Amino acid sequence: MTAAKGFRAAGVTAGIKASGTPDLALVVNDGPSFAAAGVFTSNRVKAAPVLWSQQVLKTGELAAVVLNSGGANACTGPGGFQDTHATAEKVAAELGVGAGEVAVCSTGLIGVRLPMDLLLPGVEQAAAALSAEGGEAAAIAIKTTDTVHKTAQVTSPAGWTVGGMAKGAGMLAPGLATMLVVITTDAQAGSAALDEALRAATRTTFDRVDSDGCMSTNDTVLLLASGASGTVPDAAEFAEAVRTVSADLARQLIGDAEGASKDIRIDVVNAATEDEAVEVARTIARNNLLKCAIHGEDPNWGRVLAAIGTTRAAFDPDRLDVAINGVWVCRDGGVGEDRDLVSMKGREVVITADLNAGQAAASVWTNDLTADYVHENSAYST
Amino acid sequence: MTAAKGFRAAGVTAGIKASGTPDLALVVNDGPSFAAAGVFTSNRVKAAPVLWSQQVLKTGELAAVVLNSGGANACTGPGGFQDTHATAEKVAAELGVGAGEVAVCSTGLIGVRLPMDLLLPGVEQAAAALSAEGGEAAAIAIKTTDTVHKTAQVTSPAGWTVGGMAKGAGMLAPGLATMLVVITTDAQAGSAALDEALRAATRTTFDRVDSDGCMSTNDTVLLLASGASGTVPDAAEFAEAVRTVSADLARQLIGDAEGASKDIRIDVVNAATEDEAVEVARTIARNNLLKCAIHGEDPNWGRVLAAIGTTRAAFDPDRLDVAINGVWVCRDGGVGEDRDLVSMKGREVVITADLNAGQAAASVWTNDLTADYVHENSAYST
Repeated sequence: MTAAKGFRAAGVTAGIKASGTPDLALVVNDGPSFAAAGVFTSNRVKAAPVLWSQQVLKTGELAAVVLNSGGANACTGPGGFQDTHATAEKVAAELGVGAGEVAVCSTGLIGVRLPMDLLLPGVEQAAAALSAEGGEAAAIAIKTTDTVHKTAQVTSPAGWTVGGMAKGAGMLAPGLATMLVVITTDAQAGSAALDEALRAATRTTFDRVDSDGCMSTNDTVLLLASGASGTVPDAAEFAEAVRTVSADLARQLIGDAEGASKDIRIDVVNAATEDEAVEVARTIARNNLLKCAIHGEDPNWGRVLAAIGTTRAAFDPDRLDVAINGVWVCRDGGVGEDRDLVSMKGREVVITADLNAGQAAASVWTNDLTADYVHENSAYST
Repeated sequence: MTAAKGFRAAGVTAGIKASGTPDLALVVNDGPSFAAAGVFTSNRVKAAPVLWSQQVLKTGELAAVVLNSGGANACTGPGGFQDTHATAEKVAAELGVGAGEVAVCSTGLIGVRLPMDLLLPGVEQAAAALSAEGGEAAAIAIKTTDTVHKTAQVTSPAGWTVGGMAKGAGMLAPGLATMLVVITTDAQAGSAALDEALRAATRTTFDRVDSDGCMSTNDTVLLLASGASGTVPDAAEFAEAVRTVSADLARQLIGDAEGASKDIRIDVVNAATEDEAVEVARTIARNNLLKCAIHGEDPNWGRVLAAIGTTRAAFDPDRLDVAINGVWVCRDGGVGEDRDLVSMKGREVVITADLNAGQAAASVWTNDLTADYVHENSAYST
C-alpha cells in the first residue's frame, strides 16, 4: 500500500484484541492530492464506521484511514457511533487535519462496544509509528481470523503505482464481503475517476467472492490517490490496474477463507445475460450440499443441476452441460463423461456450467464447506 | 397411512439399495372414490417421476402410488422417463388399473439410472404383499438417510381419518424439500377440495421447513381420498386435519435432518406482510454462520441482524429486537439483555426477530450446521 508514493502507514498493538496481536492500522495520504472513493456493504444493518465513512466520503477527499480489528462496532447504537466519531477526531488531532477527512473501518465481533481507553492511545502510538515502509505492518494489524496478511500492487511503466491491502476470512459474500480493503495510488486522478475505476473493479472481483453466503455489516473498500507520482494515468490502464489489484486481493481472500480446503471457481457460460450468469454462479456457490461434496472430492454434478434449477435464469433443463475440472460429467441435462475421470486432488476446483442460452458469462469464487469451518464458527464469540 | 379406510400398502426389498434395506413401497386406493391432489418441487430441474406424476394427476384421480428409494431418477434423460413409464405400466398390470392412474415417486442419488431388472420384480413382490396394515412397511421402504420412518394421523369424531407418511433428511428446503409425502384419507372429497386443502397445508408446513437451503429435484406431496368412510367432512375441519398431519410430518423431518444437533424455529413477528416475515425468517434460517453458532450454543445475535440486513423487508435497523430462547439479547438494534442468560442446552432453539414494522408473522424451521452434516454429505455418492 505504501508502494504508492505519498502514503505512510503503521500497524500497532493497542490491546483491543485479547490475543495481544496487532490490532490498529493507520494509513495517511500526504498528498499533494487527496481524492478518494469508497464502496460499502449493501447490508442494511450497517456498522457505525460504515455510516461515518460514507458520510465523510461525500466530499470526495480523504486524508487518512484508521482501521481496527478486535471489534466491528456494529449494532452498538448511538454510543457506538460516538466511539467512531471520537476515533476520527483523535486521528485528526494527531495529524493536524479535519475529522471529516478521516475514514474509519472496524472489524471483529458484532454487538460489542470498542475499548476506547485502549483504542485512543493506540491512535497516538500509530501516528508516531507512521512511515513510508509501514504498509505491511498495517496489513498485519487488520487481520481477524485471517492466517496471512494480504497485499498486492501494480506499477505502470508510466511511473505510477496502485497498491492495496485487504482482510477477510469469514462472512464473505457479495455486495460486499466481510472485508476491509484500502487501495492507494500515486497517480493523479479526481474522485469521480477513482469512483468509476473502483466500482468497475469491485463489480467483477470482490462482489464475485462468495465464500459462505454471509454478508457483513462492515465491508469497506477505499481507494485513495495522492497524485505524488505527478503522472496522469491513461484511464483504461488505470482502471485495469485497480481491477488487477482488486482481483489479486479477492483471490487471496478466498485462498485464506475460514476452514476451507478448496478454492472453487464457478464459471457460468452461454447465459442469456451477465446478470443471469452471476445469479446462477452465485446460487451454485451457495449450495451447501455441493460445497460438502467438493470437500469430499466427490464430483456430484447432480447437486449443480439441482442448484441451477432454483434460479430464474433462461435455460432448458435438457440442454444443460456441466464440467468439473474440465471433464463434462453432465451433457444435455443427463449423464455425460465418466465421473471417475475427474481429479479433484488440488486446492483449486473449476466447475463450468454451460446454460446454452446465450453468450454471456461470469465467474464467482467460493470455498468448500468443511468441519473446520463449523468448528471455527461455532465458537467465535465464546 | 393405512389408518384411513380404503387403502392398502406394502414395503419390500427390491435390491435397489446396496444396503439391502427396504426400498420399494406401494400404496393402493381401493375406493370407492379415487380423487387425488399433488404438490411438486418448484425446482426447474425436475426428476422423471415428477414430470410423470404431474401429468397423470391432471385427471384429478389416482389409483396407486409406487415409490422407490435408492435412486432419484433425476437428470437421466429420455431413458429415465421411459423407466418411470415402465414402472407405472408394471404397477397398472399388477393391479388391473390404467398406467395413467399410477403416480411414481423416486428418491436417492441424482444422475443415475434405476436398476429396472430389480425394480420391476420388486413391484410384483409389493403387489403381492399389499395389506391394510402395510402403512408402516411402506414408510420404512422410502427412507434414504432418514434414521427413523415418519407417519402421522388425525381421526375426526365424524368418522373419517387423515393419515400420512414422509421421508426426507437432506436437501431440505422450501418449495418443497427433498421429501416424498403421501397423505391418505377415507373422507369423501373431490379433487378440487383435496387440492385446496393440500396447498393451504403445504404453504405453512412443508414449505417452511428449510434445513439446508437446498431444493430437491424430486419433492412430491400427494393426497389421496378413498371416500371409504362414507362421510363428507366439514371443509374447515378437514383442511385443519390435513394441515395438522402435514405439520406433524414436517416437524419430524426437521427432527431427523442429516447431522443436525438442534431444531431451530425462527419466529419473525411484527413484519409488514406475511411474505416479508417469511423472507426474513428464511434468510436467517439459511445463514451458515448463525447455524454454526447455534451448534456451538453461542447466542451470537449479531449474525441474526447481519442476516436480516440482507433482506428487502420493511424495518428500521435501530428498531430491531431479537430474542433467543426468550431472552431479548438485542433491543433497538443494539445490545439488550445479558447473553449469558440464554440457555441453549436443549435440542429445540427458538429465535424471535421483532421487526416492529407491522402485524404479520411467520415461522420457518431449520437446523444447525454441524461437522456431521459435512461428513455425511462429503461422501454421499462415493
